[in-house]
Amino acid sequence: MAGSRKLRLGTVIHGVGGGTAQWRHPQALSDASVNIDFYKEQARKAEEGKLDFLFIADGLYINEKSIPHFLNRFEPITILSALGSVTSHLGLVGTVSTSYSEPFTIARQFASLDQISRGRAGWNVVTSPLEGSALNYGKTVEQHPTHEERYRIAEEFIQVAKGLWDSWEDDAFVRDKEKGVFFEPAKLHTLNHTGTYFSVKGPLNVARSKQGHPVVFQAGSSENGKDLAGKSADAVYTAPETLDDAQNFYRDVKQRAVANGRAPEEVLIFPGITVIVGETEEDAERIYNEVAALVSIDSALDYLGRFFEHHDFSQYPLDEPFPDLGELGQNSFQSTTNLIKRTAQEENLTLRQVALRSVTPRSPFIGSAEKVADLIQEWFAGEGADGFVIRPGAPGALHQFVDLVVPLLQSRGLFRTEYEHDTLRGNLGLPVPVNRYSLESSGTLQLQGEG
Amino acid sequence: MAGSRKLRLGTVIHGVGGGTAQWRHPQALSDASVNIDFYKEQARKAEEGKLDFLFIADGLYINEKSIPHFLNRFEPITILSALGSVTSHLGLVGTVSTSYSEPFTIARQFASLDQISRGRAGWNVVTSPLEGSALNYGKTVEQHPTHEERYRIAEEFIQVAKGLWDSWEDDAFVRDKEKGVFFEPAKLHTLNHTGTYFSVKGPLNVARSKQGHPVVFQAGSSENGKDLAGKSADAVYTAPETLDDAQNFYRDVKQRAVANGRAPEEVLIFPGITVIVGETEEDAERIYNEVAALVSIDSALDYLGRFFEHHDFSQYPLDEPFPDLGELGQNSFQSTTNLIKRTAQEENLTLRQVALRSVTPRSPFIGSAEKVADLIQEWFAGEGADGFVIRPGAPGALHQFVDLVVPLLQSRGLFRTEYEHDTLRGNLGLPVPVNRYSLESSGTLQLQGEG
Repeated sequence: MAGSRKLRLGTVIHGVGGGTAQWRHPQALSDASVNIDFYKEQARKAEEGKLDFLFIADGLYINEKSIPHFLNRFEPITILSALGSVTSHLGLVGTVSTSYSEPFTIARQFASLDQISRGRAGWNVVTSPLEGSALNYGKTVEQHPTHEERYRIAEEFIQVAKGLWDSWEDDAFVRDKEKGVFFEPAKLHTLNHTGTYFSVKGPLNVARSKQGHPVVFQAGSSENGKDLAGKSADAVYTAPETLDDAQNFYRDVKQRAVANGRAPEEVLIFPGITVIVGETEEDAERIYNEVAALVSIDSALDYLGRFFEHHDFSQYPLDEPFPDLGELGQNSFQSTTNLIKRTAQEENLTLRQVALRSVTPRSPFIGSAEKVADLIQEWFAGEGADGFVIRPGAPGALHQFVDLVVPLLQSRGLFRTEYEHDTLRGNLGLPVPVNRYSLESSGTLQLQGEG
Repeated sequence: MAGSRKLRLGTVIHGVGGGTAQWRHPQALSDASVNIDFYKEQARKAEEGKLDFLFIADGLYINEKSIPHFLNRFEPITILSALGSVTSHLGLVGTVSTSYSEPFTIARQFASLDQISRGRAGWNVVTSPLEGSALNYGKTVEQHPTHEERYRIAEEFIQVAKGLWDSWEDDAFVRDKEKGVFFEPAKLHTLNHTGTYFSVKGPLNVARSKQGHPVVFQAGSSENGKDLAGKSADAVYTAPETLDDAQNFYRDVKQRAVANGRAPEEVLIFPGITVIVGETEEDAERIYNEVAALVSIDSALDYLGRFFEHHDFSQYPLDEPFPDLGELGQNSFQSTTNLIKRTAQEENLTLRQVALRSVTPRSPFIGSAEKVADLIQEWFAGEGADGFVIRPGAPGALHQFVDLVVPLLQSRGLFRTEYEHDTLRGNLGLPVPVNRYSLESSGTLQLQGEG
């Protein structure tokens, strides 16, 4: 498998940046999260670097303590569509929650994005970790479903979406002007789904693009999340801290895919990595320190609280060991909060250290282009990753990555110098899913041939 | 009022065209409904003609008898966003149903489109006439709500959306890098809506664009629809058959606006008109006949049935008087079906005549550029319209309208030669809604000043 593996790269476009204070950097565009020119420019830079895709994260609830980027930002479906018409090869991946939307609408919006971009759409399935989301979707959804139930909903939701995407066989639209035949009725299929959470008749009023289905990403790293990935996802966005973590996760998800009757290469593992690249090691260090120095301890405590159901950390002493929180965080960002608790204990960290590190993580992917390229190569070759999602750790970090790291990866034969395809599946090396109904009819033919 | 009135124009982009057979025209692009290049080209032509906006219609249910354009087309939010990044002045108006969506999501997607386009978004509120829609949104919405209830839902939905759009006062984002102040907490407002149909806390995670709120269109012409328009809409998309009808509708809606404490010019009336323009009268007639000749009687009967809850009209004799349908059509396209029944009776039409006319209406706006410009002037001056939404009646009809009719309207001083603004509200001459919370605080200040 290793011989034919090809490195894949995506990048988050993150507006004013993660954390509480990146927007304060002198080179930061402080309205970037709602600045269409900034997003266009980042997308074009990613395409110049031959990256596989851009990635738009999301959330459905804010309050006055949310970080700047979350307060006022583009909604994923709209910004992906806007960027689709000004790019030609770059994949367009965005987060949409299965806990607060309808499968007919989401299947349709991603299918439409897939037609607009001619096969470059990707959907990052999340189940919405924040309990506040339920407050913005009152009546329909009475309370935030439990972690378990959210994943059962997600699984049925994805099933329905994939079913709707197959409503039209690829050769259904004859468009014969002479005969007056627009489509072949036998190649239109009505889903008639009736499940635990949804009842959706279909058919969908958008046909498949040339990549068949939008690429399905999954972004939860809990047991339920990994199960869902093994069963239904084409790609997983994850956040390991070390190569060892990454390798364990990689093996784990690939095994779950195999257990579901899939080939291991049918689900690609993408660690998200915070990247800061300098001309030299010292230059990168200087940029990291500039960014870290922008954060106040108060905002760091708020930021940390967000992962723990908006827990108020200002009640604890700053320079004593990280407090015992019991079960807090189990129904929210489960894997993140477990990691925070474990690291705090193992490294004997104070609350101040945990809080500051949570806002400005000391990512291993901070350094000279050479160092970053070496690490990418090591994680990739060591089967900790099939590719990476770059999270720019400072203003200009995507530019530096494309200008300095990509050429190194290319010269080492690890990364493409030209796009192989113009679809996201094509570039990721994922197969075009055969339409379930075409499969049925060819299956029938085969049986008849054997009989 | 007449002295300051300015003619406004929008155009539907309609893919392969309305009706059952326009796609068969030799000049029709038979995949136009999912062809992004076609949509870009139409949008650019509309902008070249200084039109106020493009308009994307929609529906949430198809079956094998739906007309070609409905079967496989772009979803409105995605295509509007895609066109937003390749245009600069054209308004972007699209249909989204309040019966099958969530106010937080829709308020957010339109607010995001409004930021992407820097103030050019418009939302055409519909309540979904087709009962089939409920089948694609099972579990959440158990059955298609009645006409009355759909309008009560719509009214509350719009209230919530407008409330969410005011979450951030226009000067809330200070973005002071020195002081580390991203926004002023006092200028962030939480809606806390609890109503009959929705409970939505807020705030919205997108701020207002420079036009304040997206422009709200309303497209139902029933009594409930006109009430909603008078109360909540900035513009109404309607479909009168004659100038007399148009004038009655115009007066009616303006009166309802006044009854709701609004100025009559705060709600603009846009008849949708099917336009075919020729170099000469005969040329236009030839194009109309070409289009009409493409339709078979079977597809015409299917098309007619769609307005009457998918009624099967093939059971009646073709050349006898239009059958008595009783109450059929009252819970669907109410005003359209009433008009069809009335016209059939008044003009003593056969089923064949009604069916063929329903697919290819003999619009008065078919003719030479001079004739079309004259009629537009007459309807506008006679207060049957504040503007029009062009429905291209044949392939190339938008081009002919822009190339031949717009210059006539400009030379008569009726229509702009340059955009006055770069927002949709600005060009339509609609005021920017004052943020409800800014209003509150300035109200308080005023009272203090008076005390």
